[in-house]
Formats: sequence, C-alpha cells, structure tokens
Amino acid sequence: MPRGEAAGDGGEFQSPALENLVRNLGRLPGLGRKSATRIALHLVGGEAETRELVAAVETALAQVRHCSRCGAITEDDPCRICTSPRRDPTQLCVVTSPVDILPFEKGGFFQGHYFVLGRLLSPLDGIRARDLPFDRLQRRLATDGVKEVIIALDASVEGETTALYIQRLCEDRDLKLSRLATGIPVGGALAYTDEVTLQRAFQFRRSF
Amino acid sequence: MPRGEAAGDGGEFQSPALENLVRNLGRLPGLGRKSATRIALHLVGGEAETRELVAAVETALAQVRHCSRCGAITEDDPCRICTSPRRDPTQLCVVTSPVDILPFEKGGFFQGHYFVLGRLLSPLDGIRARDLPFDRLQRRLATDGVKEVIIALDASVEGETTALYIQRLCEDRDLKLSRLATGIPVGGALAYTDEVTLQRAFQFRRSF
Repeated sequence: MPRGEAAGDGGEFQSPALENLVRNLGRLPGLGRKSATRIALHLVGGEAETRELVAAVETALAQVRHCSRCGAITEDDPCRICTSPRRDPTQLCVVTSPVDILPFEKGGFFQGHYFVLGRLLSPLDGIRARDLPFDRLQRRLATDGVKEVIIALDASVEGETTALYIQRLCEDRDLKLSRLATGIPVGGALAYTDEVTLQRAFQFRRSF
Repeated sequence: MPRGEAAGDGGEFQSPALENLVRNLGRLPGLGRKSATRIALHLVGGEAETRELVAAVETALAQVRHCSRCGAITEDDPCRICTSPRRDPTQLCVVTSPVDILPFEKGGFFQGHYFVLGRLLSPLDGIRARDLPFDRLQRRLATDGVKEVIIALDASVEGETTALYIQRLCEDRDLKLSRLATGIPVGGALAYTDEVTLQRAFQFRRSF
C-alpha cells in the first residue's frame, strides 16, 4: 500500500516530538497507543494545565519517599503512622506494597503499625527470601514489643508462599500470628479491595 | 466510621505531593482515580524513566504546533503536507481535528491537502458559524485553485450540520463537492476508523 510522504517520516504524526511523547506515555501502566495519543494531544493542547502537571511530577519526585521504618509512602521519615502516639505498636500488619496500606487507613478499623515487604516470594521468578526484608522484620519483632502479627498479603500463590515463610519465621516467638480471613476473592489484588470487604476479612482473621 | 489519624490529613496517602500528582493525572482524558494512582506510583517509583517522560512533555510543548495553512499537527510551519510538491492542491479534504488526518495518511490513498476546522457546529452548545474558520476556508477556496472539496466529518448530528453549512458556502463556486460514503458507522469517531473502511468510504464518496 502506498504511503503519503508526510506519513512516512517520523511515525504517524508529522512531529517526532509528539511521537516521542506518545511512546513515553505508552510505557505507563494501563495505557495503550490510543489512550497515550489522546493524552499526548491533551497535554500539548493545554500548556497551563500541562505545566501544572509537570510541576506536580517534579514535586512528587522530590518529596515522596518510603518510611525507613515501615516502608509506607511518606514525606516525613519516619512516617506519621510510625510516630503517632495514638497507634498501637504491638500490632504489626505485614503488607506487600505501600498501596496496600490505603484501604486499611480508609477503613479506619486498624490502629496498629505496618511493615511493607515490597515484593512477594516467587521462586519461579528468582525472588527468594534474601530478596525480601525478612532480617529487618525479625529485628523489629525482636525489639519492638510486637504481640500480634497480621499477615495481609494478596490471595495468590506468591502471597501464600510468603505467608508460610513468615509463619515459620515467627514460630519460636511468643506471638499471636493471624492472617486475613478468606473473604478476599482468590486472585484479587489487595490494594483494590473495598474497605467493607476488607474489614470483614480483618475481623475474621484466623490464627495459624 | 472512625478514620486513622494519618488517613485524615492530606487525603489517602500520607503525602500531599503524591495526592496532588494523583489529582493532576486524574484530569487527563480517560483516567479515573485508580488508574491515576497506579500511574502516580509508577512515576515516583522510577526517577530515570519519569525524567525522560517529563523531558518528552517539555520538548513536545516547545515544538508541536498547528500548521497555519491547514491546521495539521506539525513542527514546521507550513507543514510538510502543505509544502510537498508531490501533493495535489486542487483536492481539499475538510476534517474536524488534526487526528482525523492520521488514518488518511496511514492509508496513503489521498494525495491532496487538508483543512482542519477545529470543531463542529453545535447550536445547542452555542458553537456557531462565527466560531469556525469558515472565512479562512472561503479565502482558500477563492485563491488556491481548489477543484474538489471532500468533506470528512464525524457521522454525528454536528458533523451533518457542519457538512450542510459547507455545502451552502460552496454553492456559488465551480467546485466538485463530495463527502465520505456512508461506510463509517453512525455515531463512530472518524479518527479511530481503520484505514480500509476509511478507504472504502473515500472511494465511494458521493456528490451532493
């Protein structure tokens, strides 16, 4: 099929800069070529709004960090959950990622502390125990007066594997160990569970 | 429902900067709160890739413009379609938006010039003839030796209204006036029509 001269150079648009922007946007999670194109045109079409967005990105890059104690997303280190006198440090909720903290805080039914693992064990993908912060978790259990560990991981094979590993880590300690009740749909992602379902799963958490 | 202390201030995250980024991303077309959150975390999580994206946005803002002659997206003004000696200036294809040019150029079956209206007539939304560049279109018809005008607008009420208006504008001129064949689904957006369907609609364009 013959192609128009202008269409030949620099991709679909007559602008390498726009093509490059579409390509960069297409790397963001959940965006295909069409949504990236739509967003790119929106960005070049509204300079003031785009400058505001770029400033928001720059500020977030500069200020957002992870709490060195629990791994939550924060601007102050340690974070406000870790330093709050109103929260109970004897309850420790182990989650995979910082977003997993959101539905707990939105529900407001848990007043303990968190520990973010960052990832789950996945031997098939080469992610082993040494790749997870288990030594930091054990130090925390040894020194911080933790009485209950609540495991709140995704209901996936990797989540189960990691939960079993933590169970074994805690065996020798005088700890109540629990996990979220099976109210979360199998294969579902914890971060996007609605807070009522999550609260039910939390209330009926069962001991190992 | 009681809310955790940390959850109360600064939205869901313990970071106003991240909340602000999510809010800004949520204004982009097609992004809801969940996809905006996912993208925001991706952005703060990968500084190098994010800096590359910001640079792409800045470059696009600086370099992308509209061709002053046809309205296409371009970096050179007038654009490469308008200045190409291989294109036929006697055929003028009238489209709504610069993205509507893309499937024509991808198909490669049209070698004439374009005229971008920017928007469609929509009396109910207060968009009237004076809000569209009809004077510029008439000047172009009067001076550029245009022999055929092909109307390629969305198959919507606004598209039909605008097509009729252009038909009336052209009545006194010695012009062949045509419109895309009804092969485009009613209510469908022209920019996302596949090029084969578009080519069919183009081949069977019918005179008024």
